[in-house]
Amino acid sequence: MLERTISWIDDGPDKNAAKLIDQTKLPHEYTSIIVKTCDRMARAIKIMEIRGAPAIGAAAAMGMALAALEFKGTTRKDLLAHLEKAKAFLDSQRPTAVNLMWGTKRLLDKAIATGGTVEDVVKAMITDAKAVADEDVEINKRIGKHGNTVIANGDTILTHCNAGALACVGYGTALGVVRGAVEAGKKIHVISDETRPRLQGASLTCWELKQDNIPVTHIADTEAGLLMRLGKIQKIVVGADRIVSDGVFNKTGTYQVAIMAKYHGIPFYVAAPVSTLDLERKIDDIEIEQRDEWEVKTVYQKVKLSPDGVPAINYAFDATPMDLVTGIITQDGVFNPKELLERYHRKK
Amino acid sequence: MLERTISWIDDGPDKNAAKLIDQTKLPHEYTSIIVKTCDRMARAIKIMEIRGAPAIGAAAAMGMALAALEFKGTTRKDLLAHLEKAKAFLDSQRPTAVNLMWGTKRLLDKAIATGGTVEDVVKAMITDAKAVADEDVEINKRIGKHGNTVIANGDTILTHCNAGALACVGYGTALGVVRGAVEAGKKIHVISDETRPRLQGASLTCWELKQDNIPVTHIADTEAGLLMRLGKIQKIVVGADRIVSDGVFNKTGTYQVAIMAKYHGIPFYVAAPVSTLDLERKIDDIEIEQRDEWEVKTVYQKVKLSPDGVPAINYAFDATPMDLVTGIITQDGVFNPKELLERYHRKK
Repeated sequence: MLERTISWIDDGPDKNAAKLIDQTKLPHEYTSIIVKTCDRMARAIKIMEIRGAPAIGAAAAMGMALAALEFKGTTRKDLLAHLEKAKAFLDSQRPTAVNLMWGTKRLLDKAIATGGTVEDVVKAMITDAKAVADEDVEINKRIGKHGNTVIANGDTILTHCNAGALACVGYGTALGVVRGAVEAGKKIHVISDETRPRLQGASLTCWELKQDNIPVTHIADTEAGLLMRLGKIQKIVVGADRIVSDGVFNKTGTYQVAIMAKYHGIPFYVAAPVSTLDLERKIDDIEIEQRDEWEVKTVYQKVKLSPDGVPAINYAFDATPMDLVTGIITQDGVFNPKELLERYHRKK
Repeated sequence: MLERTISWIDDGPDKNAAKLIDQTKLPHEYTSIIVKTCDRMARAIKIMEIRGAPAIGAAAAMGMALAALEFKGTTRKDLLAHLEKAKAFLDSQRPTAVNLMWGTKRLLDKAIATGGTVEDVVKAMITDAKAVADEDVEINKRIGKHGNTVIANGDTILTHCNAGALACVGYGTALGVVRGAVEAGKKIHVISDETRPRLQGASLTCWELKQDNIPVTHIADTEAGLLMRLGKIQKIVVGADRIVSDGVFNKTGTYQVAIMAKYHGIPFYVAAPVSTLDLERKIDDIEIEQRDEWEVKTVYQKVKLSPDGVPAINYAFDATPMDLVTGIITQDGVFNPKELLERYHRKK
């Protein structure tokens, strides 16, 4: 089993810091980063040393705890003002990722709700940030157990991008479903879209499944449709960055996979924790983050693809409308889009 | 206007050789290769220094002329036996590309039909190989004129891979349609899928359109669906490697684009010369060429993407069934799939 993507250090010389697996170095180098300040955590989120919706939620919570530790004042009131600024700064790093705002809000709410001294508040925040991480792993295991019910022995599952242990604190959402099926004794093969431009499918999904000895095959993003036509894919399982009432935001290219799945009559599942739900909003309410064109015009800035002077478009996410979604797998069960709204929307 | 992709040298120190633009070096280096033997032409086809269905047809014809020039015997009978061997060798380099067999067959037929001495046959073959190249440019210009009729002023056109001047002797098929519209005074923008794994869209399509000052934007293969949904694409025009009675073979990923076009109600056109038609056959009759997995697992063997030990799948082509095709643009006009069969199938 893989080490946690992000963990809190309780002892030793780096006590009260966060430890991250550096995802920009995988699959060729496996290294960790010790993050000691809120600013450094913001940077890790921005440059995608840590990425994936649930992992960003935990990074956001730990970033808030680090901000609390950095506070030099003496009053609760000043601490809360300091934390509000830290929240705004962290939130601005990846505006489409709803788990970022969820994580910072949870920790700010914890600070507001905790009485006593500044020291008491800081202590409560560290405990809560660690709880966010522990809960994430538990939630993913429950997603895996529920997701297993839709997977058949012998299935080949296509996934897009990385919604694995690396996208979470551990275990994974989409790959949590794969792990749940493997733990239930099913023989599963995964086909991983490489997911240009950032290639998380090739680098991260292939890497983490190989670590766990789960069979995985790398394909270019151009091959998914052909493989569906040839009958080589039985299920599609992806993660989500934000689920709104009429659709699912996830890494660019997910929408295409969903269209192809519909055309071939292949079930298309989304695996995500309840923290990803944002059911008050609709697709058209969300502005899609555009990232720098070098991501498209090069591979890791190492190889240029198109000539200088030709522009590139780089939307980081797309939205898959709910009519293309067979089921959404949360920690509570598997729901079709109508059931999802009934279960979660009214509660809010 | 671009230099021809492939031309025959009539004079000077390299007389009776072929000159190719080296497409493996573009867009970063613009160099030519002088090809003096049939073997070297076979290698150029295999390693894709020259690629694209019509260009391969001209390369095949010139490869046969070079084989004739290399013949050391004295009888017509021995020459024809030599040419049959050369044809088989050339044909084996890219088995899915029907224009390869078309080009070698045309030149072999010319040799068979030409009386007189060995020298007379060789001379007739050189003349015919040059005619293949000249005819290709003329045919593409006619494709462009017919294709222009389906393009509206202000259209943004998505294309996949490179079916441009570089894929032909000159002018292009899919990009011939773009050039036809531009020459007719229409304002056109092209969006080019980068076309993993070989990235012909990013490297070749972006390069040649930039040379001709036609606006072009590079996108990752994951973004076409989103752009269609956002209303940013009005037409799709692609080339073809082989058109059979029930579908169109073209670079992997074309099929996906066609499914997405259908889903969004966007017209999907295929531009190709009549030499690409193989209407006696069906999709399931054709075995799809699989290329080496390093093409997927790396970018140009310069950057590794997935970890060692993870396999990759690499189908070079896919087949788009005719019910996804709005129209096929040949040198004779624009035909829907039924009209195409009526016009060309009965003649054969």
